[in-house]
Amino acid sequence: MTSEPRLFGGIYERGGVAAEVSDRALLQAMLDVEAALARACADEGLIPVQAAAEIAGACRVERFDVAELSAAAAQSATPVVGLVKALRAAVPDSAREHVHLGATSQDISDTALMLAAHRALGPLLADAAAAADAAAGLADAHRATPMIGRTLLQQAVPITFGLRAAAWLTGLDEARRALASVRDGGLAVQMGGPVGAREPAVAARVAAALGLTEPVMPWQAIRARPVALAASLGAFSGVLAKIARDVTLLAQQEVAEVREGGGPDRGGSSAMAHKRNPVGAVSVLACAKRTPGLVATALAAMEQEHERAAGAWQAEWGTYAELLALTGSAAAWGRELLENLEVDGERMRANLAAAPTGDEPIPGGASVLIDRALEAHRR
Amino acid sequence: MTSEPRLFGGIYERGGVAAEVSDRALLQAMLDVEAALARACADEGLIPVQAAAEIAGACRVERFDVAELSAAAAQSATPVVGLVKALRAAVPDSAREHVHLGATSQDISDTALMLAAHRALGPLLADAAAAADAAAGLADAHRATPMIGRTLLQQAVPITFGLRAAAWLTGLDEARRALASVRDGGLAVQMGGPVGAREPAVAARVAAALGLTEPVMPWQAIRARPVALAASLGAFSGVLAKIARDVTLLAQQEVAEVREGGGPDRGGSSAMAHKRNPVGAVSVLACAKRTPGLVATALAAMEQEHERAAGAWQAEWGTYAELLALTGSAAAWGRELLENLEVDGERMRANLAAAPTGDEPIPGGASVLIDRALEAHRR
Amino acid sequence: MTSEPRLFGGIYERGGVAAEVSDRALLQAMLDVEAALARACADEGLIPVQAAAEIAGACRVERFDVAELSAAAAQSATPVVGLVKALRAAVPDSAREHVHLGATSQDISDTALMLAAHRALGPLLADAAAAADAAAGLADAHRATPMIGRTLLQQAVPITFGLRAAAWLTGLDEARRALASVRDGGLAVQMGGPVGAREPAVAARVAAALGLTEPVMPWQAIRARPVALAASLGAFSGVLAKIARDVTLLAQQEVAEVREGGGPDRGGSSAMAHKRNPVGAVSVLACAKRTPGLVATALAAMEQEHERAAGAWQAEWGTYAELLALTGSAAAWGRELLENLEVDGERMRANLAAAPTGDEPIPGGASVLIDRALEAHRR
Amino acid sequence: MTSEPRLFGGIYERGGVAAEVSDRALLQAMLDVEAALARACADEGLIPVQAAAEIAGACRVERFDVAELSAAAAQSATPVVGLVKALRAAVPDSAREHVHLGATSQDISDTALMLAAHRALGPLLADAAAAADAAAGLADAHRATPMIGRTLLQQAVPITFGLRAAAWLTGLDEARRALASVRDGGLAVQMGGPVGAREPAVAARVAAALGLTEPVMPWQAIRARPVALAASLGAFSGVLAKIARDVTLLAQQEVAEVREGGGPDRGGSSAMAHKRNPVGAVSVLACAKRTPGLVATALAAMEQEHERAAGAWQAEWGTYAELLALTGSAAAWGRELLENLEVDGERMRANLAAAPTGDEPIPGGASVLIDRALEAHRR
Repeated sequence: MTSEPRLFGGIYERGGVAAEVSDRALLQAMLDVEAALARACADEGLIPVQAAAEIAGACRVERFDVAELSAAAAQSATPVVGLVKALRAAVPDSAREHVHLGATSQDISDTALMLAAHRALGPLLADAAAAADAAAGLADAHRATPMIGRTLLQQAVPITFGLRAAAWLTGLDEARRALASVRDGGLAVQMGGPVGAREPAVAARVAAALGLTEPVMPWQAIRARPVALAASLGAFSGVLAKIARDVTLLAQQEVAEVREGGGPDRGGSSAMAHKRNPVGAVSVLACAKRTPGLVATALAAMEQEHERAAGAWQAEWGTYAELLALTGSAAAWGRELLENLEVDGERMRANLAAAPTGDEPIPGGASVLIDRALEAHRR
Repeated sequence: MTSEPRLFGGIYERGGVAAEVSDRALLQAMLDVEAALARACADEGLIPVQAAAEIAGACRVERFDVAELSAAAAQSATPVVGLVKALRAAVPDSAREHVHLGATSQDISDTALMLAAHRALGPLLADAAAAADAAAGLADAHRATPMIGRTLLQQAVPITFGLRAAAWLTGLDEARRALASVRDGGLAVQMGGPVGAREPAVAARVAAALGLTEPVMPWQAIRARPVALAASLGAFSGVLAKIARDVTLLAQQEVAEVREGGGPDRGGSSAMAHKRNPVGAVSVLACAKRTPGLVATALAAMEQEHERAAGAWQAEWGTYAELLALTGSAAAWGRELLENLEVDGERMRANLAAAPTGDEPIPGGASVLIDRALEAHRR
Repeated sequence: MTSEPRLFGGIYERGGVAAEVSDRALLQAMLDVEAALARACADEGLIPVQAAAEIAGACRVERFDVAELSAAAAQSATPVVGLVKALRAAVPDSAREHVHLGATSQDISDTALMLAAHRALGPLLADAAAAADAAAGLADAHRATPMIGRTLLQQAVPITFGLRAAAWLTGLDEARRALASVRDGGLAVQMGGPVGAREPAVAARVAAALGLTEPVMPWQAIRARPVALAASLGAFSGVLAKIARDVTLLAQQEVAEVREGGGPDRGGSSAMAHKRNPVGAVSVLACAKRTPGLVATALAAMEQEHERAAGAWQAEWGTYAELLALTGSAAAWGRELLENLEVDGERMRANLAAAPTGDEPIPGGASVLIDRALEAHRR
Repeated sequence: MTSEPRLFGGIYERGGVAAEVSDRALLQAMLDVEAALARACADEGLIPVQAAAEIAGACRVERFDVAELSAAAAQSATPVVGLVKALRAAVPDSAREHVHLGATSQDISDTALMLAAHRALGPLLADAAAAADAAAGLADAHRATPMIGRTLLQQAVPITFGLRAAAWLTGLDEARRALASVRDGGLAVQMGGPVGAREPAVAARVAAALGLTEPVMPWQAIRARPVALAASLGAFSGVLAKIARDVTLLAQQEVAEVREGGGPDRGGSSAMAHKRNPVGAVSVLACAKRTPGLVATALAAMEQEHERAAGAWQAEWGTYAELLALTGSAAAWGRELLENLEVDGERMRANLAAAPTGDEPIPGGASVLIDRALEAHRR
């Protein structure tokens, strides 16, 4: 999927994730769910195979008009009612009654959101893995590069830069594995019908077709599953924020131990030609600082009434789309940041020598811990 | 300004506010700031009047390419660097050096955000005033319509529906006046130059030209002013959430004391033809539940370093645009909800009669309090 | 551990969790970590066995003065510096230099917080399991009790109350298992020394002694592990909030399908003697509504500088203690709520009969889904 | 009021605010409201003057048992029901029926919370004013002390330290004036009786007696007023966070332009004797980072049902008490930080000289802007 560039997209929507949660992508995901539903119904003998094929054939985003669906959404607090109507109009008469069989709007939009999240986690986890690889490379290359350790923004005692990079690595590995585990077992199909009481056979087939998990039962008003996704995204962007914060601090001219790479045009200022701004780290932070509030919204939205909520559920769509896009952008920026980081070992040594404890030995555990982090990364 | 309809725009972007914070509108606001800056510089004798006129003439959004600016934003963590370059390319050679004189990117984007907020508060406050008028109408019309008061979702003792509507009214009035006060005195120009030390004369002229406040000094890393906007938006959407929550509860078939109006197509279900969903109230809640997290993000972003922050400032743009659009949509939906609310006085009486305390008198203060609320509204 | 009752403790601190995160309990946990550290150092041959025994013997909370430690905390932004000083004063001269060997304040307070969390999860998970058992009992007992399903707070089509309870059950089971998994693999010892570079042998011994996990490496400024705890707590309280919200709605006199039990004194009003307030559900909601903001704080606090953060880390202590206490209280209240819930099957049938779709059949999947939920619960 | 010292109280509860929102203080505030209510009722001729005097005489916190009230709170989801019972038992028989006349629990607890907030704002605003005075002193003393301005954590062009301090000053002044305005006009009495319909005469008298505002009408489920308090507290702590962040950055040994004062014992490390940690700035940040989540909770809690909410209201007590205490502690720490800040003008000059733009002139506006900030401060 591609999406229209946004004015602040260079910061908030870098990498491949934003396009997977664009309006167009979400609409295609809804259509993919309708198609999978039709095929599942045919496989269960509930509708003709021919009708399923015709429905699936019509489920192509370019046939639908976002503006019309948006207007229709105002009539029913969901775009799905309008989408189903438009889909019915797009198939032959004989297939019409077989569209959306036994489903409710929430089945389509919840499953579509999980499907879009699954797709979005593809590029996100690829960027995350590459970022971790880059951190591993730094940890290994600089295992013996001494630098002053800093606590409470004060110089403490010596470490190596490899140890710092190993800490980044461990955070990235733990957070991305948690996210991968959500993708592989947490993103579940929703196919419960009007009140969540549909026979599970159709749900099982739709789940298999879309690569999603089959849940114990529909989770319409039980939002623990999407919230696990939200929390993992928030945690991953939090790890990236830590790394980016470190880079901004180490890149201060007074410290100058690292510098962002990324090409000659990166980091210019409109007013001060000599400046080289840490654009990657700033962009990671710009994205990551927006995620805790979104996770809080997702958590607060768990208080959902009866079989389908009046407001809390409808608040989720924009929240999850933003959360995925921002974490994805943070991951893309974080990968780039780590892959191009320029480390100045000489300056590290000089700063260390000037520190009050610069002549203390590097603690013995540093190298062992780096090895442990690298080994855990390779697992 | 118009903006592209979004898939969930029918819910999240109703009314006139979203268009004032669209990419296109924000870009035009940046250009309006560049134009006002050029004119202010000319008035101060810093650049030729002719150059200012040429610059101002070029500041039209349709001449600029959002996609290009978005790509450029990734080079400098702000779209303004690219915008200034494009603007310089759009004016005659002789005016080129006079573009963006003495300004920094933050001057343009902060002032543009305040300008866009000022514009967005136009339709928002109009919807808020109309919503309050509608609540006042309900309070007056139903000052003697008895209903059972409810606390902790349990029937308590009698009130009148007018008293409930008066409570809504008071909340709307207090929250919209706070917002109007932010618009009229809180939204300040930012024109401090690279490090916030520019002579204030240009800032004063730009403020006057754009209808914004002139601050004591540049507020580049002191975010109390934008945060006052964020908090007032959050509070206003919170009042709307309270009203919408009441409507969903009173519209339960088991209660049936009010019903949303809005025309025959409103509130249909894809699976249950007989249902009439409280679409307006649901949409208000969908928007309003997303705002507390955004306000928290704005507050957390106050921790900004030195003369310009590395991350916290850049996190604000999307946050404020969302917050304005969502509160604006909640206001538009809330106005519609209140203007079309159908009140069933008979059912209120019947429910009251069936309540254990249904024969207790309505407390004497109800009518006095309604009058006080109406009087305060007229002030 | 016991703790002083607080004015709002009846609401916010019910059950056994609050006492495990009280000041007294946190202090004892810190002392337990110092004791385990001393023994680990002795086992590694770093200090005399006799000294370790003397240190461990002194690590009893009643010997220390919270007021003094609080005052000392203001000198160093942590109570541990004062605690170590007091502990040194409490042991024989010969043991003094062996106290806190190679450790830093963060080792003690991070490990103590994880230890307290581990202890707190004991009563919390017991309440959670009992709540799930109660939900399972309701699902089974009411698998054939028909009621009207409700979506967007409107009557939809029939379900059974057992299906609703099965949805609650599934949420409880998924959320409590996530929490148990954090307890069993997520709560890790922190024993890195001043800059996180200590040899891991001591950490391994301390972890084994305290029943905590041994991490790949110290996680001083990488907060993915505590954040996983925070998110799981937030999600669990969110599931409880959903259940409590349902109970408040079903307990409305106009609906009257369930009522809270809990004894004759529960639910009185100071002004209206006839009222029976849903005190348990209200208390669950009072606690659960406070957790999303705390999780957001924990996530935002992941942006930690270098080897130890200046502010973000110190913000965690109160945040995690609150989050544990509130989720624990919600769990205790939720358990009580579910164990004593009075279900009025007759009223459910009457409401169903009065609904526009009351004569539609209960969807066939209801019973199958209940069985799946019960089976998953027994696993 | 005094309160028990807490383990982390040195960090989270510095200054005079925490004691005003302690359990003991909140209980006394509730009793003060009952006393004021009794006197107001007597003045209105509703109860005997003698009874009012007896009731008021009994309203002393030392006569009541927090543990008992806490236990009673679990029976009614508020401590007030138990408090009223205990108060009735504490007065002569003849006064008993005149206790709590016409009031409901929410009247007492809402008004008590506003009263406690009013009292808490005393020391908070005093610390805020002293902090602003200290910033003004720095702005004036260092108006000509050159330093390098820094943007995105990179050296930019010269400013003076006085300009930085003037920015701090402006933020402090604007945020504390907003808070003072909430105290003087926002904190309103709540005296609406069971469903908010009480005649306003009693409310007017109680307001006058307690120094609180008389609202247009009871605001039981309309929480715009407390939310204005919450937002102002959040904004004020955000300004303090900005200042504290700057101090941590300027105090890095590699920068060394400022250092915290506060006496020889301040800032020690348990592991590194040579270190001098910026304890004040860290403590400000520890407190301030906890406030955005609390404000979000307050905002989300605005969605309150009917005449009194089931959960959202009860979530406020702990939230507001924490928010006041933490902002108060941040203010006390911030004042101390600014009053004792040691500024190294020589180092500023040296760092400036070493910067790539160190020889550029200080922008002309700096001195003018400092004067404007100082003038605004004196207003």
